[in-house]
Amino acid sequence: MSETFVIAQGGGPTAVINQTLAGIVLEARRQHPGCRILGSKHGVRGIRDSNFVDLTDIPEARLRQIAATPSAALGSTRDKPDAAYCEQILKGLRNINATAFVYIGGNDTSGTQAILRDASDGFIAFVHAPKTIDNDLEENDHTPGFISAAEFVAGSFLSVDLDFCALPGLYCGIVMGRHAGFLTAASAAWRLDEESGPHLVYVPERPFARARFVDDVKRTMAKHGRCVVAISEGISAPSGKSMVEELVAPDRLERDAHGNVRLSGTDLGQAIERVIAEDLKGIRARVDTFGYLPRGNIGMISEVDAGEAFEAGAYAVTVAGEGGGSVALKFDGEKTVTRRVPLENVAGKTRHMPDDFLDAEENRLSAKGIAYLERLVPRRFDPAKPFV
Amino acid sequence: MSETFVIAQGGGPTAVINQTLAGIVLEARRQHPGCRILGSKHGVRGIRDSNFVDLTDIPEARLRQIAATPSAALGSTRDKPDAAYCEQILKGLRNINATAFVYIGGNDTSGTQAILRDASDGFIAFVHAPKTIDNDLEENDHTPGFISAAEFVAGSFLSVDLDFCALPGLYCGIVMGRHAGFLTAASAAWRLDEESGPHLVYVPERPFARARFVDDVKRTMAKHGRCVVAISEGISAPSGKSMVEELVAPDRLERDAHGNVRLSGTDLGQAIERVIAEDLKGIRARVDTFGYLPRGNIGMISEVDAGEAFEAGAYAVTVAGEGGGSVALKFDGEKTVTRRVPLENVAGKTRHMPDDFLDAEENRLSAKGIAYLERLVPRRFDPAKPFV
Repeated sequence: MSETFVIAQGGGPTAVINQTLAGIVLEARRQHPGCRILGSKHGVRGIRDSNFVDLTDIPEARLRQIAATPSAALGSTRDKPDAAYCEQILKGLRNINATAFVYIGGNDTSGTQAILRDASDGFIAFVHAPKTIDNDLEENDHTPGFISAAEFVAGSFLSVDLDFCALPGLYCGIVMGRHAGFLTAASAAWRLDEESGPHLVYVPERPFARARFVDDVKRTMAKHGRCVVAISEGISAPSGKSMVEELVAPDRLERDAHGNVRLSGTDLGQAIERVIAEDLKGIRARVDTFGYLPRGNIGMISEVDAGEAFEAGAYAVTVAGEGGGSVALKFDGEKTVTRRVPLENVAGKTRHMPDDFLDAEENRLSAKGIAYLERLVPRRFDPAKPFV
Repeated sequence: MSETFVIAQGGGPTAVINQTLAGIVLEARRQHPGCRILGSKHGVRGIRDSNFVDLTDIPEARLRQIAATPSAALGSTRDKPDAAYCEQILKGLRNINATAFVYIGGNDTSGTQAILRDASDGFIAFVHAPKTIDNDLEENDHTPGFISAAEFVAGSFLSVDLDFCALPGLYCGIVMGRHAGFLTAASAAWRLDEESGPHLVYVPERPFARARFVDDVKRTMAKHGRCVVAISEGISAPSGKSMVEELVAPDRLERDAHGNVRLSGTDLGQAIERVIAEDLKGIRARVDTFGYLPRGNIGMISEVDAGEAFEAGAYAVTVAGEGGGSVALKFDGEKTVTRRVPLENVAGKTRHMPDDFLDAEENRLSAKGIAYLERLVPRRFDPAKPFV
């Protein structure tokens, strides 16, 4: 029986998730001449609804153009299939005689693959190919999509710090990341020296205390005459409550039908602005919310990231041949390599930033954290230090 | 008597304001061998306080590195000198026997030059070299700094639109610009086709009505299944009040000591989020505030912009030799050229985006607006349209 590959993309798009798609298609054709390749639109939803695009004969030049385009060309989804939904997906895969299903995504996506595998009859290889700007997948040294997003964040903070050398004050940039602080920490990757910003980095892995933040800013302003701050959207108060809940007055909180507080970078940004207005009076301040800008920016796609994402896709075809699993990017001490790991090691789990990536006493990156970032995201520019 | 050039940088930094600085230094050396060149730190404040950096013999390689670095290497200022401050500046210029003062900046900066010239004894040539991401200087086809910022905005909206093809919903990006909408309009420069976002563009030149916004979004969602919106920080309600004042409940407004409402992208962003929560229920939405990210981003410096900024600086030396004035970038029908114009034509004035750059009936760019942007900011990427 000839092979039929099904490919889908899940979760938040990245700058290089289409590289992984291209890697799968080209490698599947190479390893399995005559195979059929179907792209499922909007993740598993396309399998359920029989909504496919036939990639079997897509010209390589067109595929390379897609690969170089940010965001998920097949569309994405945040659907979390329950048992009935899973049965519909399996039925959809059987209907087209699928022999392998490669799902490109993060921890939720790998979780879906583990559930499908456990519910299946074993005739289909379930493969997870990694993707997330959050860099929060277990078993991975880093993840495709992270480096490009990290370069955007690093370059933006380098630029903003130069801006605040010219016109001093306090800058707070709110960066995506609900549970893992890697992307926010990347703000420090391109610092020029010890004097450069970001001077303060707040990540979800460490409780955020308002009084400490105010002290940190005052101390930094006194020392450097300016203060550039990177704050993760996912920071929580020492109480464990989200900062939005902690900082915004109860009557101002917006809740959804389930009573959950609606979180957004803008909410947090305004909460931070209120703290500044109340406790840091007289300081010229600016708060920006980066939001989606880093996650698939066409102006900042890393070639290394693109290459690794493509390789992860190509290797997924090999993993399919071995019966399935998750593709992981490992660091062998010299270079990044792709390895097959069990789905359950990655599925639904979150890798947090190691505690020692931050200084124990200060809200700044440690030497170890900086070394990790410098290996992955070496500075691509050599700006001059200003005269002031 | 040998020439002494004084150079300063004023207002918000840009990606290429140091190109102008380099252009002045290199051209002054070329036209006036043996001249002295002093950089004033933090705008006119450095002249008042005798705080200079000697650029007379700065090596060209170092100058080229500074030129390629965003933000104002000499530091900047937002000081608006009164009569007494002006006298101190003139005294400072006389003390060092300045023969020409070139001030790089926007409309406030050119205003300062006009005031200084009128208060001076005529022995110093006062020159204004243009700079602003707002693109709002009279007499100029466009201004150094705008193209780089515009490319950042255009690339970001292209990228976000691809993101929202993959995961549909409503996106609002808040872009700087208090009085002129050019930078917000640049969001549409790299649209792939009529179906692409941004689907709606709101600029300060046109009143923003809440009900109209809600209708616009609903209609776009129905037509395209997603809605990408560019909103200028400076939009005002039909009443003339700022949108922040209009949208935010009175008890939530923050006011300074003079009773002025504090404006920020984050405030507007949250006001827009409230409108969405109240009037566009059930739509997945994201609001981001670009803030300072476009204005001097090291990852997105246009070579054309850099070249024009350098030329504007070089031409400022010629203008100094002609007794002073403002350097303007004109379009001669084929290319950008530098011309000398009277200071008073630029000083303190704001060029608004022409009314016909927007469709009369819709909040979208007109063919004329698009043509202007496509001439200045041609698309630098050729992304694939997604399958979805």
